[in-house]
Amino acid sequence: MPTASRTVTGYGSELPAHWPAGLLPPRLAGLAVETPFLACDLGIVQDRLAALRAALPGVGVHYAVKCNPSPEIVATLATAGAGFEVASLGELRILLDVGVPGDGVLYSNPVKPVRHIRDAAAAGVWRFAFDSENELRKIAANAPGAAVYVRLRVDDSLSRFPLGRKFGAEAHAARELMLLARVLGLEPYGVTFHVGSQCTAPAAWRSALAGAGTLMRRLRADGVSLRMVDVGGGLPARYVDPVPPIEDYGRVITTALDDVLPYRPETVVAEPGRYLVAESGVLVGSVIGREERAGEEWVYLDVGVYHGLMETQQMHSDWDYPLWTSRRRHAEEPRLPFTVAGPTCDSADTMFVATPLPAALGVEDLVMIGSAGAYTLSYASGFNGFPPPTPVFV
Amino acid sequence: MPTASRTVTGYGSELPAHWPAGLLPPRLAGLAVETPFLACDLGIVQDRLAALRAALPGVGVHYAVKCNPSPEIVATLATAGAGFEVASLGELRILLDVGVPGDGVLYSNPVKPVRHIRDAAAAGVWRFAFDSENELRKIAANAPGAAVYVRLRVDDSLSRFPLGRKFGAEAHAARELMLLARVLGLEPYGVTFHVGSQCTAPAAWRSALAGAGTLMRRLRADGVSLRMVDVGGGLPARYVDPVPPIEDYGRVITTALDDVLPYRPETVVAEPGRYLVAESGVLVGSVIGREERAGEEWVYLDVGVYHGLMETQQMHSDWDYPLWTSRRRHAEEPRLPFTVAGPTCDSADTMFVATPLPAALGVEDLVMIGSAGAYTLSYASGFNGFPPPTPVFV
Repeated sequence: MPTASRTVTGYGSELPAHWPAGLLPPRLAGLAVETPFLACDLGIVQDRLAALRAALPGVGVHYAVKCNPSPEIVATLATAGAGFEVASLGELRILLDVGVPGDGVLYSNPVKPVRHIRDAAAAGVWRFAFDSENELRKIAANAPGAAVYVRLRVDDSLSRFPLGRKFGAEAHAARELMLLARVLGLEPYGVTFHVGSQCTAPAAWRSALAGAGTLMRRLRADGVSLRMVDVGGGLPARYVDPVPPIEDYGRVITTALDDVLPYRPETVVAEPGRYLVAESGVLVGSVIGREERAGEEWVYLDVGVYHGLMETQQMHSDWDYPLWTSRRRHAEEPRLPFTVAGPTCDSADTMFVATPLPAALGVEDLVMIGSAGAYTLSYASGFNGFPPPTPVFV
Repeated sequence: MPTASRTVTGYGSELPAHWPAGLLPPRLAGLAVETPFLACDLGIVQDRLAALRAALPGVGVHYAVKCNPSPEIVATLATAGAGFEVASLGELRILLDVGVPGDGVLYSNPVKPVRHIRDAAAAGVWRFAFDSENELRKIAANAPGAAVYVRLRVDDSLSRFPLGRKFGAEAHAARELMLLARVLGLEPYGVTFHVGSQCTAPAAWRSALAGAGTLMRRLRADGVSLRMVDVGGGLPARYVDPVPPIEDYGRVITTALDDVLPYRPETVVAEPGRYLVAESGVLVGSVIGREERAGEEWVYLDVGVYHGLMETQQMHSDWDYPLWTSRRRHAEEPRLPFTVAGPTCDSADTMFVATPLPAALGVEDLVMIGSAGAYTLSYASGFNGFPPPTPVFV
């Protein structure tokens, strides 16, 4: 039920002044697609991968498929030689369908359904994360001889989306578990952690790596050498406010790998998601209603919280998506603070408040939501009969 | 990626002691479906419709499709002679596909995409809600001559999900708008309101109807008689704690229709969703992990917040889904407080805390989530590669 068929032209030139040149999606101009749609520039994904590799030499990149499981994104990264990290058998199947072999895939969800372990192992996956004895026993029974990497609980308070207590073994337990892995016929292969999503403090990796280093030293005393350190995800994308450049993260992580680990394992990997794909995407919606409600200006779009903008519900007041409109060509136009809502009858379907937008914004105008390539389509639904945005790739 | 194929037998007899006999889904016993699945007993939907009609004689029932748009539910209600209320052209198409004629459908979303208005009118819909001049003009231009009903803003503070400021015209504006409707060639047809979803205070309808009555009196002085009063949605379902019986709502609404309206319009309707379908559904998941985290007991299911249990994120501490397990047959088994989480890597994917469940609960056990027929499938996604529950109807 898209609401408008429109040629989107030239909004690249209407981007906010601070929009980094590298984030401009000029190849998205000229698309004729009904709104809502999510346009992704695959060239930006390639550029991001190259930038990450330059910043983290010797570190393997395993894309976190959950962030945006579109086959086009996956194929682009696979062609560029990236590896992958999956949270489920469902994600593994997306990879297998585009020809990614299972043996390069990390299965990093610490708690896995038994059948997913078994079927993933049958598809060639040989490395599995875990953080408990129960999980170790599930892996030993369903993927005998597999290599396992323990997920350490680390301080994630510096991230926007801390991952809390749901996952992670305490340091003292991690050593015991790795020794148990050996007893169970598994290979005690590596260590991982997650500093939390959208982490704007590179130092978080240094503390987390220090914890990994402590575990490695203890295990070496037990006669166990680890072959992998996995620094997890959390590398941020730019939304409105600047985030530290990737070089800062590269410097901190590279230095910490040398400083705080007792030895350098043969494999060091990262599991970026948001950093690689968020800024490649622009979500384009149409204004379906413009109203004044109790003295406030409201616009209603044909895309909302349940159709890709779920993360607006979790954002802090100082983190928002960049917004611009098809009226931006009138640069002198006065602006007003708007509440921006989605199309459903649900009041929770309200994405932005007090957002300055052109005063004349009206029905059929377009609203562009930048940095929308990550964690949007991956949990979009068709609530209230409004379809998720159509993905478009250039 | 279902995780277990299992015959679910006899959990009907394991329901909590307070479970009302009418909510037992005995016909769901014996199903062999892979988890997660959402089993709906269509007989319960029919019973609920009958109970509502008995409680509200003379009030037409228009099911709120957004609540659960499954064609099986829609067809069951259509066969029983119910009407429908839609939030979008997408929902209207679901109705048309099962043979429901457009002319019995109310289009109650107050803010609609232009194309949805036009295509709905072409499909025979002739009654549209609105709450602003802009919307009136959209309707006049795209569904000329349509009948319009104004959505009044009312006190929704007694509901679990107040709908806030997103929708609704103030009383003084409503009269002006209805007069403008006539000027624009539309029929000023009716008045509606929404007391908020899961409203446990029947008196909320009396106050809201009093507001509608005031509008009707003012409009009568302007020479306008309304043909419809629509008392909206909000009738609650039972989750864990009891809610007032439907007869209480029937009594309050029926009395108020006589007491507070200046006249009885030819058409009085209600738009129930949750009341009709919530208790018809049981969501069945499997335990995929059992862990101790920082001294707390956790179970991880193969279904979570993003696969149907979104409302757990919005529930107050005193409203929860009823839970029971395949271990309930051991009635004497000791219990422990559990945190119950979904299968994804997202820590927000945690549904219940401090929920007493059998101490021995372990991997492959089943967990049943009752009253799961409403607002579950309608915003389920496949986040992290875990599919939404399979719908099953008996």
